Amino acid sequence: MARPLTLHEDRLFPADRETRAIARDLYAGVKALPIISPHGHTDPRWFSENAAFENPSALLLAPDHYLFRMLYSQGVDLDALGVPRRSGAPSADPRAAWRVFASHFHLFRGTPSAIWLNHVFAEVFGLDVALDAGTADHYYDVMDAALKTEAFRPRALFDRFNIEALATTEGPTDTLDHHYAIQSSGWDGNVITAYRPDPVTDCEHEAFAGALEAFGEITGEDVYAWTGYLEAHRRRRADFRGAGATSTDHGHPTAATADLSPAEAERLFSRVVKGEATAEDAELFRAQMLTEMAKMSLEDGMVLQIHPGSFRNHNRPLFDSHGRDKGADIPMPTDYVRGLRPLLNAVGNEPDLTVIVFTLDETAYARELAPLAGHYPALKLGPAWWFHDSPEGMRRFREQTTETAGFYNTVGFNDDTRAFLSIPARHDVARRVDCAFLARLVAEHRMDVEDAHALAVELSYTLAKKAYRLDREPEPRAAARA
Amino acid sequence: MARPLTLHEDRLFPADRETRAIARDLYAGVKALPIISPHGHTDPRWFSENAAFENPSALLLAPDHYLFRMLYSQGVDLDALGVPRRSGAPSADPRAAWRVFASHFHLFRGTPSAIWLNHVFAEVFGLDVALDAGTADHYYDVMDAALKTEAFRPRALFDRFNIEALATTEGPTDTLDHHYAIQSSGWDGNVITAYRPDPVTDCEHEAFAGALEAFGEITGEDVYAWTGYLEAHRRRRADFRGAGATSTDHGHPTAATADLSPAEAERLFSRVVKGEATAEDAELFRAQMLTEMAKMSLEDGMVLQIHPGSFRNHNRPLFDSHGRDKGADIPMPTDYVRGLRPLLNAVGNEPDLTVIVFTLDETAYARELAPLAGHYPALKLGPAWWFHDSPEGMRRFREQTTETAGFYNTVGFNDDTRAFLSIPARHDVARRVDCAFLARLVAEHRMDVEDAHALAVELSYTLAKKAYRLDREPEPRAAARA
Amino acid sequence: MARPLTLHEDRLFPADRETRAIARDLYAGVKALPIISPHGHTDPRWFSENAAFENPSALLLAPDHYLFRMLYSQGVDLDALGVPRRSGAPSADPRAAWRVFASHFHLFRGTPSAIWLNHVFAEVFGLDVALDAGTADHYYDVMDAALKTEAFRPRALFDRFNIEALATTEGPTDTLDHHYAIQSSGWDGNVITAYRPDPVTDCEHEAFAGALEAFGEITGEDVYAWTGYLEAHRRRRADFRGAGATSTDHGHPTAATADLSPAEAERLFSRVVKGEATAEDAELFRAQMLTEMAKMSLEDGMVLQIHPGSFRNHNRPLFDSHGRDKGADIPMPTDYVRGLRPLLNAVGNEPDLTVIVFTLDETAYARELAPLAGHYPALKLGPAWWFHDSPEGMRRFREQTTETAGFYNTVGFNDDTRAFLSIPARHDVARRVDCAFLARLVAEHRMDVEDAHALAVELSYTLAKKAYRLDREPEPRAAARA
Repeated sequence: MARPLTLHEDRLFPADRETRAIARDLYAGVKALPIISPHGHTDPRWFSENAAFENPSALLLAPDHYLFRMLYSQGVDLDALGVPRRSGAPSADPRAAWRVFASHFHLFRGTPSAIWLNHVFAEVFGLDVALDAGTADHYYDVMDAALKTEAFRPRALFDRFNIEALATTEGPTDTLDHHYAIQSSGWDGNVITAYRPDPVTDCEHEAFAGALEAFGEITGEDVYAWTGYLEAHRRRRADFRGAGATSTDHGHPTAATADLSPAEAERLFSRVVKGEATAEDAELFRAQMLTEMAKMSLEDGMVLQIHPGSFRNHNRPLFDSHGRDKGADIPMPTDYVRGLRPLLNAVGNEPDLTVIVFTLDETAYARELAPLAGHYPALKLGPAWWFHDSPEGMRRFREQTTETAGFYNTVGFNDDTRAFLSIPARHDVARRVDCAFLARLVAEHRMDVEDAHALAVELSYTLAKKAYRLDREPEPRAAARA
Repeated sequence: MARPLTLHEDRLFPADRETRAIARDLYAGVKALPIISPHGHTDPRWFSENAAFENPSALLLAPDHYLFRMLYSQGVDLDALGVPRRSGAPSADPRAAWRVFASHFHLFRGTPSAIWLNHVFAEVFGLDVALDAGTADHYYDVMDAALKTEAFRPRALFDRFNIEALATTEGPTDTLDHHYAIQSSGWDGNVITAYRPDPVTDCEHEAFAGALEAFGEITGEDVYAWTGYLEAHRRRRADFRGAGATSTDHGHPTAATADLSPAEAERLFSRVVKGEATAEDAELFRAQMLTEMAKMSLEDGMVLQIHPGSFRNHNRPLFDSHGRDKGADIPMPTDYVRGLRPLLNAVGNEPDLTVIVFTLDETAYARELAPLAGHYPALKLGPAWWFHDSPEGMRRFREQTTETAGFYNTVGFNDDTRAFLSIPARHDVARRVDCAFLARLVAEHRMDVEDAHALAVELSYTLAKKAYRLDREPEPRAAARA
Repeated sequence: MARPLTLHEDRLFPADRETRAIARDLYAGVKALPIISPHGHTDPRWFSENAAFENPSALLLAPDHYLFRMLYSQGVDLDALGVPRRSGAPSADPRAAWRVFASHFHLFRGTPSAIWLNHVFAEVFGLDVALDAGTADHYYDVMDAALKTEAFRPRALFDRFNIEALATTEGPTDTLDHHYAIQSSGWDGNVITAYRPDPVTDCEHEAFAGALEAFGEITGEDVYAWTGYLEAHRRRRADFRGAGATSTDHGHPTAATADLSPAEAERLFSRVVKGEATAEDAELFRAQMLTEMAKMSLEDGMVLQIHPGSFRNHNRPLFDSHGRDKGADIPMPTDYVRGLRPLLNAVGNEPDLTVIVFTLDETAYARELAPLAGHYPALKLGPAWWFHDSPEGMRRFREQTTETAGFYNTVGFNDDTRAFLSIPARHDVARRVDCAFLARLVAEHRMDVEDAHALAVELSYTLAKKAYRLDREPEPRAAARA
């Protein structure tokens, strides 16, 4: 007998009756607001080509490192799940992979993945029984059939999901052709890009040499000279703005920034391009490039995002066999106080600049990040990120940042996902958790309910739109310019 | 239509009905207890001269870095708020400054500043509408008129606030004349001082050279020789005790202490006075001076307070234009385990010594501070400090220290403020949050309600009085001695 | 008038009525499950000799560093409590010691010690008045009389406590005679050992030289040669398995591991046995030995436990007078990401290996440990440990690990205690706190109540049994083999 799958209307609200009633009321005011997704990792090809998704496992399972990392931690073979190796995709039968996943779904009890997936199953696919080994085939059949219909094509889902704006993330050598194709397609979905130049700013990146060469080709600049290299960034930033970008993004191992003199920066760059950079040079170059990017942001208005603090590819044997992004990126303590100081001393007092900083080290919320964001005009706090994008994680974020930074130095929610179907679920969780937090403040007579209603809208919609400058007149798109 | 301003009688209590009822009951037993304020930064001149406060903005806005840092973080110009520059106070009209503040008051939603200010507005000034742009002038008029009355003179407010003892903080070269004047005035308000020698113990302090010279003059000791320098401290400590001091206070970048041999200490001091100290020497000298002060405390009974862990003046451009204490002090991780060990190994086993340690790094509560305070006889934990002096911060303090250190290794509440009018509000918040914490323990059957009542009194009143030795027969005041 | 002592049936459950009802229901399903105690420090002599315990103070007070550290922190002399000095036990009268303790029992308000002790008083001894100065003698008389009865002999209590398995911890040179005696005694209590080789793997241990010599004698191996030394470990691990051991345990100052080549390891070992090891060598040798132990675990199936992060013997004067384990061990920040990487890269992908890691640094829960355990097949998280084995500590553990690691990468509860009488109390607290956590997830509609029931059993019983391999056919006991 399969158990029913239901999404309770009060899920994630506090149990206390009075507080729950307030949370319900607040949530009613934001539930139907459009989704602003200003930072994420969906594939623009989906929206340019609008082809049907392949099958449930390829869509939901193989690319989702939240899922396969947990299964792997309990001894499940990645091959059995269809997770690609460096040497190519394993020949896992997608239905068999789904069965393996279904029979281990109990591992996700108490995790956000379970919440997100159950939302996808119930709301997106209309399933009404719980997933387990006994319902695996039923799930597979229902979802596989649905994915073959027009209603489950990417653009149809985008419209159904009530997405007002969705940012993807592209590298510095991306042609942006998918974005141009979307613009030319006549479809009015607002899919924009974001500029993530890590492969050409991190000389320890495995793709650095090749990326730098391609960076020169695509920009026509002499990227082996410091001024040409900076000019190439300016050109590409303009290209990205032509594909709707309002932000750049930087994933660095630390939060280090630097503010070298032009001569020092040029000498450092010279060591970098000659392949003579030490580990300290590489760190310093990444640090300097954040400040360079911030200065370009002052010129061109793009929002700068910093995502620091992950020890990438911690599992060397798995990296050797399977490559990057296989669930083996582990957070580390991150020093924001000393790390961000050079950048903030250079440009942090500029009220027209927006730098959004994220953390995987929650100890920095109350100790470093809220005090910094509650002081520097340019600095804002990104939402609870990655492992902390969860009910408890989002609650800690609010509890530990609000009293010092307030709500207005935060920027709403980022889903930050490549799991397209989970986007409504993730925003729904964020809205519910924020409403629950506000409801507690109201119930404890720390805030008026009118203020809480206003803030619920800010946190669900307005702050993200403003912080990422999606409320401003966009620059002309490349298609329009051409 | 202005919104009403009301202070709900259940504010800050848990929403759960049963727990709230317990909290109410506990709070009823401590609400009216006198205020013990053993550490703070009010100006003794207020109480010696007893002049009227200048105007609402000069009193409430310009000196409160909690307020102007938040406004600055959202792009408000400090000049518009009347915050002084190094080059002198800006010519901001106080009413205009107040209007700027009022129109940004929504930024403080969810912050302790909003709680404190609303308490001041409602309880101290009797205002009954909420502050916003529309009520700014009404507020200004009401408060400005009140401040011109006798009832709002500092001594009248002190008496009205039911303050049993209030400590100010003075530097090592202060004449203490305001304290002497209070003693001689016939007014019976118990305003005492505390000895904060940072300008002569921190050779990286910008005022060090001048302060050391003045230190020699005021004490008549040869402060350029190690023994004379120590003797000068002893003299000044005695002076401060004559102005009621029962404690010393030390604001250091880290929690480092040292226990050098006399010869080593003398050699270090020699480098310090010659201006030859390296950064390591400066750190070591501050560290050694904490242990020297602790040893003097063993002689003279003064309580030693350590306030470590702030990166001062993080914003260099703002420091250059506006100087210290402008909202740009940012907490850092602090190592108490290795830092305090030399001092604790030297004198930490002395039950007659009291060392009160504070932190801006909450990660140390459960990991380091509670285990240390739950072991060493001399060590006690100061309350949640600065950014953490807030409902969530105080709750975390209790949740993370109580199970290992108990309640009796803590010392009650410090308001630590220069915002005189907010003192009752701050103590009220602390009492409410502690009662809420105790109520939860009672509701979860982890504590008897009788014990909770006893503890509520300890946390609100008795522990502070005992820890700071305000329950002991004071030394004769200088005025009486003379 | 003595106050009554009662253990409320809802203790430690949330106050909210709906959540409390769920917690009650979950707890009803696990309350009576047998106790699995896979890691602890009871004395096997108790169970081999089955003699009566000496007196209440010697049993409950003198060996419990949770108790005497708190009393010491408030100025109580350790001699008055009967805590042994290096020079021998003080001549404290046990009744007088008990009176001192009783008159300070209020210090434990809000601590887990109070919960555990009240459970022992009420459930084990049947006391029905609260402990204070007035009831001290009554307590002493009741408990002293009880301890003289057959029903309070160690084996009778073991049976009464419904302990299914209890692990003690022995050093590498222990003869295991008490364990052999238990096996031969005909008593069917399942008391097993665990292998803790710290005295021969930590060359900074004060007993290292003597322990290494004894290690050679007991194994007959040349423990001064690297291969002989490793072989000696293999022999002793086999001996311990013959005394029921399923695990090894390692208490190191850090979480550092290493994976040296055999030649490097041999050179390092050579410096160690020659007494030429630097502090870095000592750290590297401990680090290398963790990986060696993990590799032996792959051979012999023993579970490897790592307990890192304590600064031992922080109070040097007390260490000089009283020796180890006197309440002066203080947690430190611990780096798991870089620390564990060599071991995890060597053997962390082995699904047949189990490495259980503990922490005293709660900041690592969400940041490092849950992400690591939610990825590596070999890694599991030990429960909240030592200072964090408390209601708030256990709650934080679940709140901060579950969303990333799930429940199935945790291993149930460890009481980790030498306080034998408190074992049922400690397991009861853990079960209640876990049920309270699960109840909140149910009440917030984040989990079905059926799943919560299943998990309550897992967390209370099954996970510990599986993780420590107590569900497997044990190796033949030495007595059976002989």
